[in-house]
Amino acid sequence: MRTVFHHPIAPFARKVRLALAEKKLEFALELEKPWERREAFLMLNPAGEVPVLVEDDGSVIADHAAICEYLEDAYPTTTLLGREVAQRAEVRRLVSWFDTKFSREVTDLLAGEKLFKRFSGQGTPHAQSIRAGHANIHYHLDYIGWLTERRNWLAGDHFSMADIAAAAQLSTLDYMGDVPWDDHPEAKNYYARVKSRPSFRPLLSDHMPGLPPPSHYADLDF
Amino acid sequence: MRTVFHHPIAPFARKVRLALAEKKLEFALELEKPWERREAFLMLNPAGEVPVLVEDDGSVIADHAAICEYLEDAYPTTTLLGREVAQRAEVRRLVSWFDTKFSREVTDLLAGEKLFKRFSGQGTPHAQSIRAGHANIHYHLDYIGWLTERRNWLAGDHFSMADIAAAAQLSTLDYMGDVPWDDHPEAKNYYARVKSRPSFRPLLSDHMPGLPPPSHYADLDF
Repeated sequence: MRTVFHHPIAPFARKVRLALAEKKLEFALELEKPWERREAFLMLNPAGEVPVLVEDDGSVIADHAAICEYLEDAYPTTTLLGREVAQRAEVRRLVSWFDTKFSREVTDLLAGEKLFKRFSGQGTPHAQSIRAGHANIHYHLDYIGWLTERRNWLAGDHFSMADIAAAAQLSTLDYMGDVPWDDHPEAKNYYARVKSRPSFRPLLSDHMPGLPPPSHYADLDF
Repeated sequence: MRTVFHHPIAPFARKVRLALAEKKLEFALELEKPWERREAFLMLNPAGEVPVLVEDDGSVIADHAAICEYLEDAYPTTTLLGREVAQRAEVRRLVSWFDTKFSREVTDLLAGEKLFKRFSGQGTPHAQSIRAGHANIHYHLDYIGWLTERRNWLAGDHFSMADIAAAAQLSTLDYMGDVPWDDHPEAKNYYARVKSRPSFRPLLSDHMPGLPPPSHYADLDF
């Protein structure tokens, strides 16, 4: 069966799980602890990172961005990029926003410091980075609010890979109780809509050993 | 005329310049200093980063990854991703390798600390980061050597976006004299082949004020 190597603390594995579910492609999950640098896993992805997708025929696709574009190439019936060239460019601009900018300015500083270091046993959380992550998230939630006041979904009329990229980052942080929803009602309304999609349901039952999520994590009316 | 907002220290602007030239699409360059956060530029790209592409009809495409995929969508005659699904996934895996992993582990630590901080006047270079960048580059040059012993170009038989992504990072570092070519003859041979392509020529005459490149930078037999 199609398999995704993942870890629940990895936002980019969440991104691929959401993309597969939105495309109604079934898959099994295989838990991988990338920091263990398991040799058989490094053969699948020399970068040593989750997610990795292994198809039924044994073909291996590594890297979240490559996997998401691959899913569009291989299973074009349901598109998460749109069909119009300009629309696809806008979706991808926002995918990069969340994959790169949000990830570097927020997720790396919060989940990276608090979760990754805890699970991998590598280093101790850096208080200054965590403070910066908490400060930076407001700007990004404002941007989500700004976009969704003007558009139905982040990139336009339709739910797209941009929403998936955003939700992947947000859901990791929400598991930690690190999203100041009450200060950002538009972003909160938007996220409630994303969270209620069937594709999102499996993420809501994610559970990291020794680190239960806050009670609102799985609540659709949070 | 089609215009690219760029800065010569920005590897991702180099990536887009190479992609356009490989596709034989003419363009003008507009120098942008992203750290000045010019309001008219932020209207083009709220992320405040180069490159930004403005087409003849006024349409704006922001973000290097979105631009490169847009060029494939809009000008498919010459492909830099390939036509086969599996091949495209391999190209994109390596694009992510250089755009994300190499960039974070090497370019950010060397060009980011030494060039960006100098030009933007923001902060002073962090010696420990620079040492880490110098240490990390060997692993990446080994990987380039490993790939090119097995393949004609990084992702397979054909020159692709993977080579462009790699060359964009390498050329920025080479401008600073920060690539230890003599320790990595396979990577050096590979880069000599990339460097001799017509698309590369304009990059070789890049000049940053007050910071001339080393003599080998523009030399095809370096």
